[in-house]
Amino acid sequence: MTTTTSGGDHLSLTFAALADPTRRAMLTRLGQGPATVTELAKPFSISGPAITKHLKVLEKAGLITREKEAQWRRCRIEAQRLREANEFIEKYRKFWEDSFDRLEVYLQKLQAKDAQPAIKASAEPGVTGGTEGEGI
Amino acid sequence: MTTTTSGGDHLSLTFAALADPTRRAMLTRLGQGPATVTELAKPFSISGPAITKHLKVLEKAGLITREKEAQWRRCRIEAQRLREANEFIEKYRKFWEDSFDRLEVYLQKLQAKDAQPAIKASAEPGVTGGTEGEGI
Repeated sequence: MTTTTSGGDHLSLTFAALADPTRRAMLTRLGQGPATVTELAKPFSISGPAITKHLKVLEKAGLITREKEAQWRRCRIEAQRLREANEFIEKYRKFWEDSFDRLEVYLQKLQAKDAQPAIKASAEPGVTGGTEGEGI
Repeated sequence: MTTTTSGGDHLSLTFAALADPTRRAMLTRLGQGPATVTELAKPFSISGPAITKHLKVLEKAGLITREKEAQWRRCRIEAQRLREANEFIEKYRKFWEDSFDRLEVYLQKLQAKDAQPAIKASAEPGVTGGTEGEGI
């Protein structure tokens, strides 16, 4: 049990911060480069305090930093926590890659099945010399 | 704004489900293979209803499925949502790789700086002829 609680706080904060479309959109904007709070708030029709609250969640999770520059604050993305979140999710990569592989195998089988009757239909008459009528 | 709300629900549910150490531990267990609810609950000293609640959050987020087998329920991991979460985070890979590269460049510079005086220090005694005893 201890393994699940200690060291899990950062990850919990990171995932909780990512569990909101507005905060993810803010990160996406910051992915293009640092931005002031005003620039970050522009696409959203939500109040100033709500914007501040979202930024505080992102900051507390260590996903962004806010630097004071003259009279405004400049936000920039911080990668370390995202790297940790990525490490957690990456452990499951084999599951989605396996399921993709299974889908591929299934599709190949389907294609092979589709192709076989076509080959038989065109090949059989020549080989057997006209027994196609059997079992119909 | 519309881009941040529509299509973001799955991701929000996924990240919210991942924002808990018990649920992450359950996923880690399921990463080893399917398990019954009893097997999943074993490492945790929390109540049955609490376990059920966590499993429901994971199931609602599409991270696991629960199949009824005889009288128990077997849980297994589902990869699709994790793949989507991975896709979101992967977009920021360049940030943590860039910062890693910057760290590497910084360390190389440090090493180069360290190496320079050392070369001088080891070269000088050779030039002057046996002053290694200095400073001991």
